[in-house]
Amino acid sequence: MGTVTMGPWKQLLLSALDSNSHLKHSSYFQLATIGSNGRPSNRTVVFRGFQENTDQIQINTDSRTHKIEDLKHCPFAEICWYFTDSWEQFRINGKIDIIDASTTDPKKLQQRQISWFASSLKSRLQYSGPSPGLPCLTEQPHQDFLDPSTGPVVAFCLLVLDPDQVDYLNLKSNLRVKFASGLNVNGEKCWTSEIINP
Amino acid sequence: MGTVTMGPWKQLLLSALDSNSHLKHSSYFQLATIGSNGRPSNRTVVFRGFQENTDQIQINTDSRTHKIEDLKHCPFAEICWYFTDSWEQFRINGKIDIIDASTTDPKKLQQRQISWFASSLKSRLQYSGPSPGLPCLTEQPHQDFLDPSTGPVVAFCLLVLDPDQVDYLNLKSNLRVKFASGLNVNGEKCWTSEIINP
Repeated sequence: MGTVTMGPWKQLLLSALDSNSHLKHSSYFQLATIGSNGRPSNRTVVFRGFQENTDQIQINTDSRTHKIEDLKHCPFAEICWYFTDSWEQFRINGKIDIIDASTTDPKKLQQRQISWFASSLKSRLQYSGPSPGLPCLTEQPHQDFLDPSTGPVVAFCLLVLDPDQVDYLNLKSNLRVKFASGLNVNGEKCWTSEIINP
Repeated sequence: MGTVTMGPWKQLLLSALDSNSHLKHSSYFQLATIGSNGRPSNRTVVFRGFQENTDQIQINTDSRTHKIEDLKHCPFAEICWYFTDSWEQFRINGKIDIIDASTTDPKKLQQRQISWFASSLKSRLQYSGPSPGLPCLTEQPHQDFLDPSTGPVVAFCLLVLDPDQVDYLNLKSNLRVKFASGLNVNGEKCWTSEIINP
């Protein structure tokens, strides 16, 4: 068992992303939350990179989806990310910070803006579409143009997951490693790792 | 919106399984549960077919894994099943029945036995291996032979998920359908479906 300050699992994840990059779906993972009805909820979302110089994971979402309601009720989530070519699984547990139009922290609002402009125009247009999950009305007006210089619309939301536990499994080598974070004597986040039975 | 007694999503799922059957990982999905610490938990598991003549989904697992503890605490789970070739997602929510060595119902025990013998010898051997998730001790004795006629070992557990809501999304056609179950006037389970916004 070793102790380090930077998540050692991040390098494993970057390697997995690299070795599976020929697959479009390698940036997709499943995000589990707890619904306000007390039941688990699970859906596929897209990896939008790490927050600069951190191991915090970014996800874009529509503030009108159920997952926002879920996260306001319980901010904890678990990512399950399976790489179909390298047979590696990352289970990443942590707390999610919701950054939306009502956020007041200027630094966070800037992150949201960066994430908005990093999205394709097609992705951005979806946030001006009809409310996800509501009954589909065929006569709904459909916007098909967006000014590329327009900033984030109200429904655009950036989620930032701060991992505090990662369970790594390699189905080819049968290696499983549990990474857990804690605080060191200086109050800084640090990680321990341990090989566990698969 | 229509009403039928048999889950109309099952045909969609069978079609997706068929059109993605060339991919080994097409039978893998992510199962979300709620941990006894109140946080969501999410892992990849393997689809082991439907219970005969039903739309109930079978999963094999080791009774020593955390998910069993999770399910005893909260029996609800959500499957997120993404088909990477046909771009279809099924989110299947329902209650899980745990069928293990302590189960007394003879019919359920028989289902567990059938599921055991339907597994490969390699899969069966894992249930006699060291406890999943515990620290790995290199000097652990390692069983490498199993009599093919031996019945289920104590750690072998069959999970049966009884769906009561299914959210289907096709990312190629952008069609999203919500299937929900309820009881009809005769007290029988019936399904309604509705097209919703993606």
